[in-house]
Amino acid sequence: MNPWLSFPCRSPCLKAASRAAARNEQLTKPQGALGQLEALVIRLASLQGRPEPAIESPWISLFAGDHGVAAEGVSAYPQSVTGEMLRNFTHGGAAISVLAKRLDAPLEVIDLGTLGDLELPGVRHLRLGPGTASFLEAPAMTEAQLAAALDAGYESVERALTAGADLFLAGEMGIGNTTAATAMACSLLQKPAPELTGAGTGLQPAGIARKSAIITRALERHRLDPAVPLEILRHLGGFEIAALCGAYLHCAQRGLPVLVDGFICSVAALCAVRFNPSAHDWLIFAHHSAEPGHRAVLAALGAKPLLDLGLRLGEGSGAALAVPLLQQACALHKGMATFAEAAVSGQDS
Amino acid sequence: MNPWLSFPCRSPCLKAASRAAARNEQLTKPQGALGQLEALVIRLASLQGRPEPAIESPWISLFAGDHGVAAEGVSAYPQSVTGEMLRNFTHGGAAISVLAKRLDAPLEVIDLGTLGDLELPGVRHLRLGPGTASFLEAPAMTEAQLAAALDAGYESVERALTAGADLFLAGEMGIGNTTAATAMACSLLQKPAPELTGAGTGLQPAGIARKSAIITRALERHRLDPAVPLEILRHLGGFEIAALCGAYLHCAQRGLPVLVDGFICSVAALCAVRFNPSAHDWLIFAHHSAEPGHRAVLAALGAKPLLDLGLRLGEGSGAALAVPLLQQACALHKGMATFAEAAVSGQDS
Repeated sequence: MNPWLSFPCRSPCLKAASRAAARNEQLTKPQGALGQLEALVIRLASLQGRPEPAIESPWISLFAGDHGVAAEGVSAYPQSVTGEMLRNFTHGGAAISVLAKRLDAPLEVIDLGTLGDLELPGVRHLRLGPGTASFLEAPAMTEAQLAAALDAGYESVERALTAGADLFLAGEMGIGNTTAATAMACSLLQKPAPELTGAGTGLQPAGIARKSAIITRALERHRLDPAVPLEILRHLGGFEIAALCGAYLHCAQRGLPVLVDGFICSVAALCAVRFNPSAHDWLIFAHHSAEPGHRAVLAALGAKPLLDLGLRLGEGSGAALAVPLLQQACALHKGMATFAEAAVSGQDS
Repeated sequence: MNPWLSFPCRSPCLKAASRAAARNEQLTKPQGALGQLEALVIRLASLQGRPEPAIESPWISLFAGDHGVAAEGVSAYPQSVTGEMLRNFTHGGAAISVLAKRLDAPLEVIDLGTLGDLELPGVRHLRLGPGTASFLEAPAMTEAQLAAALDAGYESVERALTAGADLFLAGEMGIGNTTAATAMACSLLQKPAPELTGAGTGLQPAGIARKSAIITRALERHRLDPAVPLEILRHLGGFEIAALCGAYLHCAQRGLPVLVDGFICSVAALCAVRFNPSAHDWLIFAHHSAEPGHRAVLAALGAKPLLDLGLRLGEGSGAALAVPLLQQACALHKGMATFAEAAVSGQDS
């Protein structure tokens, strides 16, 4: 197995957190009046190791891959869309392209393995295979493919750090990947498929029932041990989900805070945390997606996301939408006056 | 009564909404995948009368006033804080000052009437009185005071329009004003005080019980008709709440979209909508505050706010925090490619 997987995760800096908490109590507002944003800033302080955290250089890695199971008709869109969207990402027309530009964030597009032999300028083509194998017939990935996909996440994080990133966002694209992620979630959480399966990009009820039945067949075929998350990832996941998992683990190893996007990214995060529970410290959850399995995954992670707007687009778009909240929370923490500085009276005793 | 109050509200442009909706369907994403943001953009299109809406010039008016009922000890903070915070707003140390700067939004601070004879540079002092009368003893405002406070809202909107604002945000400051707003909400919604009364800036349970009992006494003393919202405002409200109500009504008359902040602003909005139901079209609700009465007020308005972060600061801070979401939603709508432009396949039929 990839040797770096056994590296330890960094520990957040408790001293920075406690200095940030002390400053937070002195700011000219009633205690706790900024709600969830106060804990968020204190947490960012602990992750960045400084009492006045800031998000100035967010980085976005977009991982794409095709899925063998897409041939079973589990998506509302044809499989060719994965490759077509790769071009759209680099041409600036996709949601994440627009949001990355607004955030002035680098957007790195990584094709781990898609149908056809794409060669697109601005895309890193890793060619791990023409999509995964259908998990109805075989493990989705060979051991070598899983290792290469995890490494792709690792290497993306290294590039983010070299570029000076202070927040890591990742997105995914892959027709069929809510099916793969739902199967993984069922296996990791030991829940039946009908409980977690949703519409993905827009299935009707009959399509959802069919998708759920396919996931049930996969779970019965592979009978995976929930205590071995990387085997669940290899048998049921996808190239892009493995890259996300590798990236999240390596962010935790290198001490780079992560803003996790929606359902598929959260499943990758759950897999990472099951593999190494200390990775959890480094994950901030951006939003609660419309996909029904997300609730169970977030609950298992003890996560309370920042946004709940019924998003279900993927690409990292929900994470990108939440970045200004983090930036505003940091600006408030740094920029507000203390009661003493502003000569404002404190609470009645 | 102020003659302008009888002016009609503008009608949103249905043609712009339908053109925006048509464009939204063509963008390279699954239908509905941007959740609540899609309806938001279509609504903004109808309010701005253009198929590609944008928020480039948000404006923030901050209305402050003191409350006679504060003498009853209904707040965790001394009444002097209202005036002290006025200085903090203009010196840049308050939460809303920091957020306005980040948004590059003008922040206008209007003191409608506070204790003491403040004269602060950068603040418009209207001197309607040294705070309102305690509603335990008299109507909070005279008819002349109510009229002047409503006019203050009207005039602030006129200044926003002159400055080229395309979104109106308002905030409030006034020690005791959750008590006034809760009393108004009880009266408008015909609900008992214990159901809607909360901690405000940070009361303990005994303080909340005391505040609730005071509101109950006020409701029994004044016995107001829920069909006459401006009388409820005059008897139980405050200068700043009346200014908010006047501003919201005038925004609707002039066709300037409003982003409503938390509990107190929502009560002013409810009052405005009860006075003229067509004002409702122009109000976008920014966040769900921690104050328990907010849920009932939002339900009465049929509002589904964008954020739910447990904020309870006031000052317009929750509205300011939500502006980037509106801006990002507009950028996505304008900047994303259509399926045809990007040569991406549509949904399987």
